[in-house]
Amino acid sequence: MAKKEKDFVKEITPMEEDFSRWYTDVILKNELVDYSPVKGFMVIRPYGYALWEKIQEFADEKFKATGHKNMYFPLLIPESLLTKEKEHVEGFAPEVAWVTHGGNQELSERLVVRPTSETIICHMYAKWLNSYRDLPYLYNQWCSVVRWEKSTRPFLRTSEFLWQEGHTLHETEEEAQQETLQMLDIYRQVAEDLMAIPVVTGQKSEKEKFAGAYSTYTMEALMHDGQALQAGTSHNLGQHFTKAFEIKFQGRNGQEQYPYHTSWGISTRLIGGLIMVHSDNRGLVLPPKMAPVQVVIIPIAQNKAGVLEKANELFDLLKAKGIRVELDDSTENSPGWKFNQYEMKGYPIRIEIGPRDIENNQALAVRRDKLEKEVISLDNIDDTIAQMLDTMQNDMFEKAKAHREANTYVVEDYEQYKKEISNRPGFAKMMWCGERECEDKLKEETGATIRCIPFEQENLGDKCHICGRPSKHMIYAARAY
Amino acid sequence: MAKKEKDFVKEITPMEEDFSRWYTDVILKNELVDYSPVKGFMVIRPYGYALWEKIQEFADEKFKATGHKNMYFPLLIPESLLTKEKEHVEGFAPEVAWVTHGGNQELSERLVVRPTSETIICHMYAKWLNSYRDLPYLYNQWCSVVRWEKSTRPFLRTSEFLWQEGHTLHETEEEAQQETLQMLDIYRQVAEDLMAIPVVTGQKSEKEKFAGAYSTYTMEALMHDGQALQAGTSHNLGQHFTKAFEIKFQGRNGQEQYPYHTSWGISTRLIGGLIMVHSDNRGLVLPPKMAPVQVVIIPIAQNKAGVLEKANELFDLLKAKGIRVELDDSTENSPGWKFNQYEMKGYPIRIEIGPRDIENNQALAVRRDKLEKEVISLDNIDDTIAQMLDTMQNDMFEKAKAHREANTYVVEDYEQYKKEISNRPGFAKMMWCGERECEDKLKEETGATIRCIPFEQENLGDKCHICGRPSKHMIYAARAY
Ligand SMILES: [Zn+2]
Ligand SMILES: [Zn+2]
Repeated sequence: MAKKEKDFVKEITPMEEDFSRWYTDVILKNELVDYSPVKGFMVIRPYGYALWEKIQEFADEKFKATGHKNMYFPLLIPESLLTKEKEHVEGFAPEVAWVTHGGNQELSERLVVRPTSETIICHMYAKWLNSYRDLPYLYNQWCSVVRWEKSTRPFLRTSEFLWQEGHTLHETEEEAQQETLQMLDIYRQVAEDLMAIPVVTGQKSEKEKFAGAYSTYTMEALMHDGQALQAGTSHNLGQHFTKAFEIKFQGRNGQEQYPYHTSWGISTRLIGGLIMVHSDNRGLVLPPKMAPVQVVIIPIAQNKAGVLEKANELFDLLKAKGIRVELDDSTENSPGWKFNQYEMKGYPIRIEIGPRDIENNQALAVRRDKLEKEVISLDNIDDTIAQMLDTMQNDMFEKAKAHREANTYVVEDYEQYKKEISNRPGFAKMMWCGERECEDKLKEETGATIRCIPFEQENLGDKCHICGRPSKHMIYAARAY
Repeated sequence: MAKKEKDFVKEITPMEEDFSRWYTDVILKNELVDYSPVKGFMVIRPYGYALWEKIQEFADEKFKATGHKNMYFPLLIPESLLTKEKEHVEGFAPEVAWVTHGGNQELSERLVVRPTSETIICHMYAKWLNSYRDLPYLYNQWCSVVRWEKSTRPFLRTSEFLWQEGHTLHETEEEAQQETLQMLDIYRQVAEDLMAIPVVTGQKSEKEKFAGAYSTYTMEALMHDGQALQAGTSHNLGQHFTKAFEIKFQGRNGQEQYPYHTSWGISTRLIGGLIMVHSDNRGLVLPPKMAPVQVVIIPIAQNKAGVLEKANELFDLLKAKGIRVELDDSTENSPGWKFNQYEMKGYPIRIEIGPRDIENNQALAVRRDKLEKEVISLDNIDDTIAQMLDTMQNDMFEKAKAHREANTYVVEDYEQYKKEISNRPGFAKMMWCGERECEDKLKEETGATIRCIPFEQENLGDKCHICGRPSKHMIYAARAY
């Protein structure tokens, strides 16, 4: 057995040795994803898809609670629609897949596989919208999109990914802005309350905003290796698209006017973030709310009288409590092998129960994030476990937050920062003049980008750290996925 | 008001006048679907999508309860994979969309937008499967597929549609057959128990089976106009694909062997069936379990003291009971306009409540399928309404079943049938020799196809109705969508 256990752990490269290989090992060993025969496209396997279902469930409920409804728009978009909004087509045209033939006939107009659906949705909204009475339009779709990527990594950047895209229209600029921020806050809840991933929220720079947006808001998370991940974005699109697509309505004053427009999305990329924030060298660590299985019961010496009965009793008790529980009473593998297996899979709690435990009216519980054995009484064990899951969810968030705080620092001197950045990843706070020139220089000289202009501004001085001219904003900079 | 009401109803073409226009009117007036800028592709609008969500929710729960898990496979499939199973490529190649360019580069190998995913899934299963211990593989995906159709109709036949596709592998032929039939029975439950659509279940003929299947099973429903609709299929694929894709596992005896394979799907087509089975000249009629909104409360003389309070109280009461309820207290439209509006939308029950009703401790309830006013007491009204919804669900199924039975007949004489069929649509039961020749002749001479060889066989004689040779099966024949 000992040998097998060792082998097992050995198959995951330690993150200190090679973070990128560690990430891939965790994903492949856990069968979350596999590579597909088309380069850059991934297969999402059942255990990975179950994580996406948790995100969908949580987000969809929040969308509906705020008045949004789902719909579905076609996968294929005519080239002429894609090109209607100038900035948008420049942003997306280089990375789309083209359908040129259908049913053995060459098409008279090429179609793109949607990279995002603003254009086709605006085309339809123009047809549907009549009066201010019809507004707001609060719609969303869950689908996949295709963006031809040159270098890809499972979940983080793939040529096809799953996401949701919300597309709303509003009578006034204020309402559109309010919606944009509301949806960003729902994303923050997905990250923080469901996935235990702390995020910094703020606005993207002009350079980093969505192609065709008036302004883009983002949530940025810090990974274990100190790199940032853009985890969700919400765009105030102003009237860019509504004018390009001639979406008009009769206003309260009887005059025709253009509505204000937002779009917002989160994707399977979040799962990459989940792994890179919480997992360790033994494999996945899943926050209880995300875990497809929250508790696994492993009977010890299960051939002894009464053990399996007690384990089954415990299983029923936890299930009745609404806990997602599994009982592994297979005889092919030893308890030790099972411990490793479920640690790798990131099940939040494992309960061990054997003859001596039963004698003492107790069980052993091991939280995946702490890996310490705790003796718990069988009396009210369902309450105890439910409580442990809650605490663990909270502890994981706090731990990730502490990691982020330990890796967030104020840049005192830009020259120093340039030298240090490779050895000091993390969020660097600095002041910025707002000029593209400095933003480009930062990228070129450090590899870091402006992740966001955070809503929570601090005054770190009145000069741009990069050029010395008067500063406009405090920014978070980091190298990013 | 009277004028407006009339106008309203006038916009739906009566089904007796033009069934096909009636269908389109019901769909467009209710904003279930709209045409998209790409011919043959549809936009599913929120009210239509909400119906799909009900189907998804019901089916997904049954899939999971029978041990299936969801996953996601790439949208694009290399041409070389599509062509691996001979019958399959012949069936699908003429109707696929081809991606030839990605990111401004011509691809070295063309990709098809998935018309169904057997090929790419089998490719991956071949990579994953090792031992009989890994079996069964019980997986499903929810996605869209593209099949380039020449003539299309919303929901019924479109170049892109939403569906789920289950793909399973089994150790033995018996298990695969059992799975195939189990999933067909789950589909029967979706149709009958959720959608109140009675179906005939049975096997497809060799001609009508899925491209690459060993045998295909189907559920067939009868529409209002007497035409049949194939509403869901389940395929026993035998070892056709597992051999073509070299999917092998080590069996219990230590020998390598090929697993047995099934696939099964239902799609947004079911929504077309829902409309054509239940709706009428006033618009949609939705079975309560399918209805996004089950009850609408319309206050009468709502400016009178106490009316809105009572209506709101009623709303809270029904909501607390778990009923999907809306209260329409808008002042822009009269109650009469609202009645028409919600009748068109097919809300199962509307409750009218005004000052006189309140005085008498009562309300009026109108079931959408009967359109008769019923006086109901305000005492225990939540129980009364819940009961009415159950009864209505059941009545709608029984009504549809009675319609099907009234339109199912035994063919006495094939020559007579040929003459009569245009005036006598419906399911025709007859005996068949099993030969393709007779099947082709039937199609050519009557426009009817063999819908299925039903599981419930009856002996209608020992001769094939078409050729007079010895008969093998009783079949259901009909013209179909
Ligand atoms: Zn500067
Ligand atoms: Zn015959």
